[in-house]
Amino acid sequence: MMFRKLLTLEEAQEAINRLEVKALGSEEAPLLIAHNRVLAENVTSKLDIPPFDRSTVDGYAVKAADTFGAEEKQPAKLRVCGVVNIGELPKVNVSEGQAAEIVTGAPIPEGADAVVMVEDTEKTGAELRVFSSVTKGENVMKKGADIKKGETVLNAGQVLSSREIGVLAALGAASARVHAVPRVAVLSTGGEVTEPGSVLPAGKIYDINAYSLCAAVLESGGKPVYMGVAPDDPTEMREALQRALECADVVITSGGVSVGPKDITPQTVDSLGKPGLIFSGIAVKPGKPTTVALIGRKLVFALPGHPTSALLMFQLLVRPVIWRLAGRAATEVALVRAVAGRRMFSAKGRRTFVMVTLRKEKDGFVAETVESGASGAITTLAKADGYVEIPENQQFVDKDEEVKVTLFRPCG
Amino acid sequence: MMFRKLLTLEEAQEAINRLEVKALGSEEAPLLIAHNRVLAENVTSKLDIPPFDRSTVDGYAVKAADTFGAEEKQPAKLRVCGVVNIGELPKVNVSEGQAAEIVTGAPIPEGADAVVMVEDTEKTGAELRVFSSVTKGENVMKKGADIKKGETVLNAGQVLSSREIGVLAALGAASARVHAVPRVAVLSTGGEVTEPGSVLPAGKIYDINAYSLCAAVLESGGKPVYMGVAPDDPTEMREALQRALECADVVITSGGVSVGPKDITPQTVDSLGKPGLIFSGIAVKPGKPTTVALIGRKLVFALPGHPTSALLMFQLLVRPVIWRLAGRAATEVALVRAVAGRRMFSAKGRRTFVMVTLRKEKDGFVAETVESGASGAITTLAKADGYVEIPENQQFVDKDEEVKVTLFRPCG
Repeated sequence: MMFRKLLTLEEAQEAINRLEVKALGSEEAPLLIAHNRVLAENVTSKLDIPPFDRSTVDGYAVKAADTFGAEEKQPAKLRVCGVVNIGELPKVNVSEGQAAEIVTGAPIPEGADAVVMVEDTEKTGAELRVFSSVTKGENVMKKGADIKKGETVLNAGQVLSSREIGVLAALGAASARVHAVPRVAVLSTGGEVTEPGSVLPAGKIYDINAYSLCAAVLESGGKPVYMGVAPDDPTEMREALQRALECADVVITSGGVSVGPKDITPQTVDSLGKPGLIFSGIAVKPGKPTTVALIGRKLVFALPGHPTSALLMFQLLVRPVIWRLAGRAATEVALVRAVAGRRMFSAKGRRTFVMVTLRKEKDGFVAETVESGASGAITTLAKADGYVEIPENQQFVDKDEEVKVTLFRPCG
Repeated sequence: MMFRKLLTLEEAQEAINRLEVKALGSEEAPLLIAHNRVLAENVTSKLDIPPFDRSTVDGYAVKAADTFGAEEKQPAKLRVCGVVNIGELPKVNVSEGQAAEIVTGAPIPEGADAVVMVEDTEKTGAELRVFSSVTKGENVMKKGADIKKGETVLNAGQVLSSREIGVLAALGAASARVHAVPRVAVLSTGGEVTEPGSVLPAGKIYDINAYSLCAAVLESGGKPVYMGVAPDDPTEMREALQRALECADVVITSGGVSVGPKDITPQTVDSLGKPGLIFSGIAVKPGKPTTVALIGRKLVFALPGHPTSALLMFQLLVRPVIWRLAGRAATEVALVRAVAGRRMFSAKGRRTFVMVTLRKEKDGFVAETVESGASGAITTLAKADGYVEIPENQQFVDKDEEVKVTLFRPCG
């Protein structure tokens, strides 16, 4: 099942996109907890907004014709016939020569077709002097002027941020039909790996990836299912992976994908079911041994053990799948423009990702290479704000050249 | 308590920053749910990482001196004395002329000081031929080379993303000491406002702001406390605000801050306690009537009723307070560079915020003005991806001029 020639990154991404994965359902989410969910259907308005002709100022509802010619020295004289309260149907009708007191947002009473601003009037008892003329419709927002009944206001695939949630509320919706959140099981592998929180046995190190990848799943809008460190024994690892497949829509492992004698993950993943391995190995650096399998209609990603490489491959391959399962339409990543702090070299024939720290200078950002050779896994992880991508056919990016940095965290 | 001269935006922000607000406590958050929380203390490593000298390749642990001069045609001959398993202390010692089989990540056995890569060896029975020399320390990661015991790895104020959570796991932490999440009570006001989900009574409109602002609180790392629509009666509104102050660290209202007869929010807020109103009115457009009060040591923000203005003022004034209460060190906002789709005008003497829709073109983004005059509140809310800021002393931004768009959603 192993491929001799490594796939390019795009070939790997296309291979994944071609797979028929199990679609997730949708559900009704109450508006107050719908934040960050993805709309599963277009939203059309069931009402006109505003639902009635509405005053946009404080003043007096009048017949515009009654104010024609009114000016400072020659005010129109009208008779106040009542008050329109906000939040209820007007109890008054405005006839010729009349005016009804009205506040911003209140419905225009029958008979009136404009509103005079309070600043342009003077009231003495029931007599109102109007010092400025208004035209028909002035200071009135017509019923449906904002949104028309039946109008499509939001689209399937939109992520619900504060604005979209405000729009849904405006339409009177108490909930939204949203895509189910993809559940992503996360396992670490490796006999040397121990869960944090316990005393570190001699010769072991603490697990990193299950924790960083669970957080990365959250950042991508998925629901992580933490499954800890998988046993090192192939049979037991297989059982752990089967449990993961049962309880999640996507499975991620990390570690055990290199060529060492203990690197049993690809074979174990392949043995889980048909069609099995899709590819094993990509022409990228880092992240080369990354392996992807389809078991039934669920994807299994076997990522490298190095924490920064695992996060990188997560962003390049897993996150788009979570977005797709979640029904997200927009799939932009967070990019920051910067200049290279020094020359960045690429690995021959492989798409190279150079980990960088962003440093703010007065003119913008400088992308400083994180030396993953000199510093270790944790230092790299702590320092790498994101990465610069160098194409296969490019030898290096020169110092001071402009680069685009893709951020690891969702935002700058 | 009202100020004649409006504060500038900076004066308003500084007035808020000067206030002594009640600090929130900290708590211990298990790592798996610590995502997006803010570190309350510096994190120093309690162990060396790696905790032992570690092989960085699969191969044989040797004494480097035993390989000196070894080459393809003249291999060094060593005797394999055992195997070092990963995840446990080595059971072998390497003496002169000996080699121990080792995998990536396994501890270097006593006596060895370098590792020969398996590709450079040939094993026949217990005899190992080494075709390449190694220097002392080659392919060995020294104990503490990544992180030294006692080293400060993360700092108070850092937001925990996937990377920081990975770092904490690496240190063996099962939890992190994080700042408490600021609770922010959100109330709408206005007699015409009805909660979504119910049938719309005649003359009323659905509440928007309580929902969009609750989502905005979430986006800022706070915990929203939804309090619905406050009663229109001053006494009842006062009681609702008092309940809000009791259950939250910050209170936000929207609506009722203009000059209409029903705009009772500023006075009601001021009556809640000392010191009361800090300012009422800012020289900005939109958002001018925004009012801020300090009651005891808790801030109350009375935002405008227009949904987009409310979100704008939230971003400019409330979000920095949530960040400060949450202990966040970094406070960048999400900016996108674009060119103005047409000339944008400012309001005389006031900091102007022009709502824009971002449109992607091949060269970058174009910021299209959202006509808040022509379209209504919901259309503006649905379309405004963010805003362009025009200084008080600038008349306009010209078409095709470069602008910075501050996004309403946390990320592009």
